[in-house]
Amino acid sequence: MSFVKVNEKSDFSYHNLPYGVFSTAGNSRKRIGVAIGDQILDLSVIKSLFRGPVLSDHQDVFDQPTLNAFMGLGYEAWREARRTLQLLLSANETTLRDDVNLRSRAFVLQSTATMHLPADIGDYTDFYSSRDHATNVGIMFRGKDNALMPNWLRLPVGYHGRASSIVVSGTPIRRPSGQMRPDQSKPPVFGPSKQLDIELEMAFFVGGGNRLGEPIPIERAHEHIFGMVLMNDWSARDIQAWEYVPLGPFLGKNFGTTVSPWVVPMEALLPFVQPNTVQVHNTHYSTELCGIVHLSSRAQGGSLLGMGLCYACPHKDSKTKVCVCLIVHVLCVCICENCAFKLLFRFVVFNSEPESFGSLLELSWRGTKTVDLGEGETRTFLKDGDEVTLTGYCEGSGYRVGFGPCTGTVLPAL
Amino acid sequence: MSFVKVNEKSDFSYHNLPYGVFSTAGNSRKRIGVAIGDQILDLSVIKSLFRGPVLSDHQDVFDQPTLNAFMGLGYEAWREARRTLQLLLSANETTLRDDVNLRSRAFVLQSTATMHLPADIGDYTDFYSSRDHATNVGIMFRGKDNALMPNWLRLPVGYHGRASSIVVSGTPIRRPSGQMRPDQSKPPVFGPSKQLDIELEMAFFVGGGNRLGEPIPIERAHEHIFGMVLMNDWSARDIQAWEYVPLGPFLGKNFGTTVSPWVVPMEALLPFVQPNTVQVHNTHYSTELCGIVHLSSRAQGGSLLGMGLCYACPHKDSKTKVCVCLIVHVLCVCICENCAFKLLFRFVVFNSEPESFGSLLELSWRGTKTVDLGEGETRTFLKDGDEVTLTGYCEGSGYRVGFGPCTGTVLPAL
Repeated sequence: MSFVKVNEKSDFSYHNLPYGVFSTAGNSRKRIGVAIGDQILDLSVIKSLFRGPVLSDHQDVFDQPTLNAFMGLGYEAWREARRTLQLLLSANETTLRDDVNLRSRAFVLQSTATMHLPADIGDYTDFYSSRDHATNVGIMFRGKDNALMPNWLRLPVGYHGRASSIVVSGTPIRRPSGQMRPDQSKPPVFGPSKQLDIELEMAFFVGGGNRLGEPIPIERAHEHIFGMVLMNDWSARDIQAWEYVPLGPFLGKNFGTTVSPWVVPMEALLPFVQPNTVQVHNTHYSTELCGIVHLSSRAQGGSLLGMGLCYACPHKDSKTKVCVCLIVHVLCVCICENCAFKLLFRFVVFNSEPESFGSLLELSWRGTKTVDLGEGETRTFLKDGDEVTLTGYCEGSGYRVGFGPCTGTVLPAL
Repeated sequence: MSFVKVNEKSDFSYHNLPYGVFSTAGNSRKRIGVAIGDQILDLSVIKSLFRGPVLSDHQDVFDQPTLNAFMGLGYEAWREARRTLQLLLSANETTLRDDVNLRSRAFVLQSTATMHLPADIGDYTDFYSSRDHATNVGIMFRGKDNALMPNWLRLPVGYHGRASSIVVSGTPIRRPSGQMRPDQSKPPVFGPSKQLDIELEMAFFVGGGNRLGEPIPIERAHEHIFGMVLMNDWSARDIQAWEYVPLGPFLGKNFGTTVSPWVVPMEALLPFVQPNTVQVHNTHYSTELCGIVHLSSRAQGGSLLGMGLCYACPHKDSKTKVCVCLIVHVLCVCICENCAFKLLFRFVVFNSEPESFGSLLELSWRGTKTVDLGEGETRTFLKDGDEVTLTGYCEGSGYRVGFGPCTGTVLPAL
């Protein structure tokens, strides 16, 4: 355990140690920190303490405005950094614990910090990883007979999103305007989306990529996945439904995508890994998460309304199992990115029970049912002023490995 | 005219002055240059000569390894830079012409330079801008009755590509492996693509973007388009055909995309603009290009084989007219990128006559006909070792505004 006190309900236990980029009122420089309890350990202040064989020559990666340089060092560097941090923060280690001056400079209260995007994201890819979600959306957009395409059962279906519209938790999201065709018997109309929605996803930061055209052996794929965040893939369903054939989602998806600011290392999630279902390969590595995610919606000036969504619980037949296979396919089977770019892969993670649906599209069945939020509030899709917060964590014995909130508020269309 | 001698068949006349990023054997630092004739004017050497009201405080944008900072300054800076360059290179201006020492430092022979990607490309978007191409591919992939989707006639259909796999002319392209289903009655198979193809496109660099969620007024859209390059959108048709429903092209398109290294300013193309067809808006600005593009394929160890493709000639009913409307839609109608990112939009530009088809998919009608390259060589799709070169220019009276070659050679699958 650590000398830093951590509440057992905190997302940021000693077992987590996620990386983020922050600034403070007194120091506007963006810098890299590690969350523990309600504190941030400022790595730019303690970079000289990274003295292992890999990092001793690369201490400057901790004095950067993004995680890109650190992620670019690769797997061994990530492991070494984590071991160093576990040691420095442990209850018995005196280096930080007993140096009052260093501690006062190195620790910042999270409540006084502003969080930023953790990395310059060169590309991102969205996978259609939930069979239930793919089936539900397919029924609504194409009818029951064409719901699940034959390729879905054979390969990971995905598409590229717009990397530059990824924003950090807390950034407001403007309701997009676009072309829609609500009445198929009439011409399309232009205006603000009337079917603004969320998608509750997990996102992977891929670090230490490969050269263009050089596949990664499947046994080494896990060495390229740096960590995970929560993601809200805001979606304008009416724009999406009209535009998406045959080239896929575009303006209905690329007006804003929110990620939580703390990147949870894959190593911190390993204790919660579940056995993988048998896939085309026989590696046992799986990134399955076991956590609870709550989604809340705040009416304009109103109170916090709970719409509890539970997904990927160990007792359910979660579809998150497919995650690692998707990544492995992209890294190994497909010719991938060069290492100058850090990528973000993401996945819709739901299961087949309605209380686990991760979008209003499904919960309201394309606006045909209202979703009861309690206290007299209902929704089919999002209203202006709604605030959506995703949270999630894995629970150990007396501690959590969590993601912190992923929040955004809907601004009216311009 | 310029004191620099320019052959009238050169792509890089005094009327062009495209920007690129280069290095030399003697100086490996990437720097910004302007092509004229067979020379490169090294802007890092003459940056102090940019003394106009906008650039005098920003001369360092010409001493960068990419065009991003310069593009980020916006329209007035681009215009001022061009006026300064036109003056400095003009026949009567003595500053450069008569300073032998400065000239020897500022000019580099293009044949001795290595070209690099002109910008860090944050995102790129591919539009399905040719009705004929969309119809042809639609017939082959979905049959005649579903060839052109109803949305095509109403809005610009596009998708996001993988920005990190964009490479500069000269970079070899590895044949991708992936999942395909050549026989619909059997399960899919995995292996090297057997239908490797090209797509002959024009690409736009968008500079000086907007804030996320803030549309650009339609009258100002042209101020955000920095310049154009040629692009080869390499495509694996067999992978694409199996994967693309319902989320669009992905691994069949993202293994490599080649751009020509010299970004031709929009201002240089204005004299060749054609009247726009009537669209939803009434602005007269149009980026229509009038040029010829030749495509060549070099057999392994063989001679250069010509497969002449003519497109967008003024005497043809070119589909390039749609270009500016696409960009305007994305910049103005749709909520767009923040200004930290430079974007690349691109378009397939063909017309309806077979000799203008811009892909082997169409020329070979999905492999059912062979394409005669002359000298006994035929193709349906590309072979390993094939070298593909795109070129294109607009022709004025005794001069050209051209793009330089966009070249790539096919490497065998790993």
